[in-house]
Amino acid sequence: MTLPGPLNPPPRLLMGPGPIDADPRVLRAMSAPLVGQYDPFMTHAMNEVQELYRRVFVSSYQETLLVDSTARGAIEAALVSVLEPGDRVLVPVMGRFGHLLVEIAQRCGAEVHTVQIEWGQIAPYELIADAMAKVQPKLLAVVHGDTSTTVVQPFDGLAELCARYGTLLYADVTASIGGNEFLTEEWGVDIATGGLQKCLGGPSGSAPATFSPRAVGIINSRKSIEAGIRAEGDAVAAHPIRSNYFDMSMVFDYWSERRLNHHTEATTMLYAAREAARIVLEEGLEAFQARHLLHGRAMLAGVQGLGLEVFGDLEHKMTNIVGVVIPDGVDGEAVRGRMLQDFGIEIGTSFGPLQGKVWRIGTMGFNARQDAVLTTLAALEAVLRREGFGLPAGGGVDEAYRVYAEAAA
Amino acid sequence: MTLPGPLNPPPRLLMGPGPIDADPRVLRAMSAPLVGQYDPFMTHAMNEVQELYRRVFVSSYQETLLVDSTARGAIEAALVSVLEPGDRVLVPVMGRFGHLLVEIAQRCGAEVHTVQIEWGQIAPYELIADAMAKVQPKLLAVVHGDTSTTVVQPFDGLAELCARYGTLLYADVTASIGGNEFLTEEWGVDIATGGLQKCLGGPSGSAPATFSPRAVGIINSRKSIEAGIRAEGDAVAAHPIRSNYFDMSMVFDYWSERRLNHHTEATTMLYAAREAARIVLEEGLEAFQARHLLHGRAMLAGVQGLGLEVFGDLEHKMTNIVGVVIPDGVDGEAVRGRMLQDFGIEIGTSFGPLQGKVWRIGTMGFNARQDAVLTTLAALEAVLRREGFGLPAGGGVDEAYRVYAEAAA
Repeated sequence: MTLPGPLNPPPRLLMGPGPIDADPRVLRAMSAPLVGQYDPFMTHAMNEVQELYRRVFVSSYQETLLVDSTARGAIEAALVSVLEPGDRVLVPVMGRFGHLLVEIAQRCGAEVHTVQIEWGQIAPYELIADAMAKVQPKLLAVVHGDTSTTVVQPFDGLAELCARYGTLLYADVTASIGGNEFLTEEWGVDIATGGLQKCLGGPSGSAPATFSPRAVGIINSRKSIEAGIRAEGDAVAAHPIRSNYFDMSMVFDYWSERRLNHHTEATTMLYAAREAARIVLEEGLEAFQARHLLHGRAMLAGVQGLGLEVFGDLEHKMTNIVGVVIPDGVDGEAVRGRMLQDFGIEIGTSFGPLQGKVWRIGTMGFNARQDAVLTTLAALEAVLRREGFGLPAGGGVDEAYRVYAEAAA
Repeated sequence: MTLPGPLNPPPRLLMGPGPIDADPRVLRAMSAPLVGQYDPFMTHAMNEVQELYRRVFVSSYQETLLVDSTARGAIEAALVSVLEPGDRVLVPVMGRFGHLLVEIAQRCGAEVHTVQIEWGQIAPYELIADAMAKVQPKLLAVVHGDTSTTVVQPFDGLAELCARYGTLLYADVTASIGGNEFLTEEWGVDIATGGLQKCLGGPSGSAPATFSPRAVGIINSRKSIEAGIRAEGDAVAAHPIRSNYFDMSMVFDYWSERRLNHHTEATTMLYAAREAARIVLEEGLEAFQARHLLHGRAMLAGVQGLGLEVFGDLEHKMTNIVGVVIPDGVDGEAVRGRMLQDFGIEIGTSFGPLQGKVWRIGTMGFNARQDAVLTTLAALEAVLRREGFGLPAGGGVDEAYRVYAEAAA
């Protein structure tokens, strides 16, 4: 067999639900040389990353760090570190990623209760409150922004409910963090886990996470230091966390001044996470979110201007993604194929009950930009017309321009 | 708080047990733009990576792929996907990473039996055979090259033992793959997992792994597809794998033609893994290993030429690392500190019973080079002399030169 040649990806504009085009600054940061695991530069960079992500999460929690996996792994790290077999968990399921929380909690051996909501709607506070009273769970696990439905879940009142029942509050902010308001500490969230590949504009493979002192206390009470590096007096738990890799009590030690060896930190992904947070905070978190709101509104107006129906509860729409109902008689996959092959633009499909019924168009991170929005709308119009779908000429681009003009006025 | 500045790592020559300096080609590959998760370019690149790593593992196994974690995560992925609670596992423990296998298997709920060997020695075949007869385990888990002791474990006869007792054979090749001979399929190894940050010359954060059809059969018998994407007729196991992220049956589907969504592949780490394998295979796997052998021999001769004692069984020394006994009266950490701060060169310490007693000097991947070897020896001599340790002037460099001259003759 001959060897494949040098890497040469085709030019793409990634306007789906993520990954999106990484910010070129993040990609450049990833070609920086490595240093050793305990090099003063490395441990200093780890400390910087902690401080940067405290600001992204709006959290003063000491245990704010990176999990060396994709966003999904960080969800598991949070859940498996907290949950012992038999623990009760409550999950409002409003879309695919609620199902994922259920699935992961079940694999932790937890007793999982759900509030099932129609995809595209939020979970009403009253339903969650009723279920909390019944279940009185150890953990309430909530997806903040579920890209499968484009809806963002309000967290009002959840902290008070959790306080009432001694429940920990977990939030999956993979798809929302950075681009949608999320105040970890003010909202009383004990654990939040994210990902780089959405609004933060990096590649997937590293997952920022933040843990409240209360969560850390529960996790550390389960600590068990592995035999190969255990010192006299070190903890050996009776029922240790079921995972070694995702045992956050050991990961906390690794990120602490103690620097107890666990895995070998994924240095290049840490470089990426550091640069991604710097980009957010240079712009300013509020300005960064306002930019997501603006370009998300322009994209929404644009698809409506093309005469397309929008999916889901628009009052609770994520800033960074819109669901578009695939019109009757239009082959959704053919449209996505032409967009990609002929225009180099990726838009997304959806999952489960929405598969084949909804496209998902993202405006996030580096791609929350006017040129990306207008180009996507122009291409979508062109493709739909060639697919035989009648639509107002220029209606998408015009409506987006209108949003931009109003914002500038 | 002001923001930290752009990333600006100090120049380092990383001659420890890993991570080592990533090959600049790998770093450059990591700044390539992203593509979507199901872009034809991406799925083609995934297929290329599978074929490249089949050649690195010397394995025809279909299920050869990347685990999106550091090397430690891939060990856990292998063990948790195979082991059900109560399953018997046998682990020969010759160093720190044997302890790690024990620890991970225990967290899977397995009944773990060990053969305990003095650090620095191999596990003799007879001891393993006796234990296999007694335990008759589901899995024999063996570290191939343990950087904590610098020793490489022979696999002769292990496949036959495993066949006798219906045991799966797992090998942790994190530190050995590429730089030491390892013939996955010929040696009857069912599962091998590696890492990029040692001989393969990449950053940590992605872990190549290969699974035999027999291992795949056992893992797939435990398959349970998650609710959010489950189709009619899809598998729901009674005792699913305890992890979702490391459930290899789902990861196999993701890497198969079915492309069933699991995590979002860490694209940039995949780019790195692809380039790392291309570099190995361009040189040729045998030439790549011969290069590791040569520079490892030069480094060994060099430290001996400095009058230093070498740790461990030299007959079974890994090509890519040497253990150096810290001489009486020398402050090991002071020497490492001067090497790093004054010369920009990192050498390693060790763990457990060897902590403070042994330095570890690596010659691997991009750093298995004459200039790296000679520079390290010259710096080590200079530092030891300033620390007041008497040693033959130029003795290290001279001996290394002698090895190179003999090899060239």
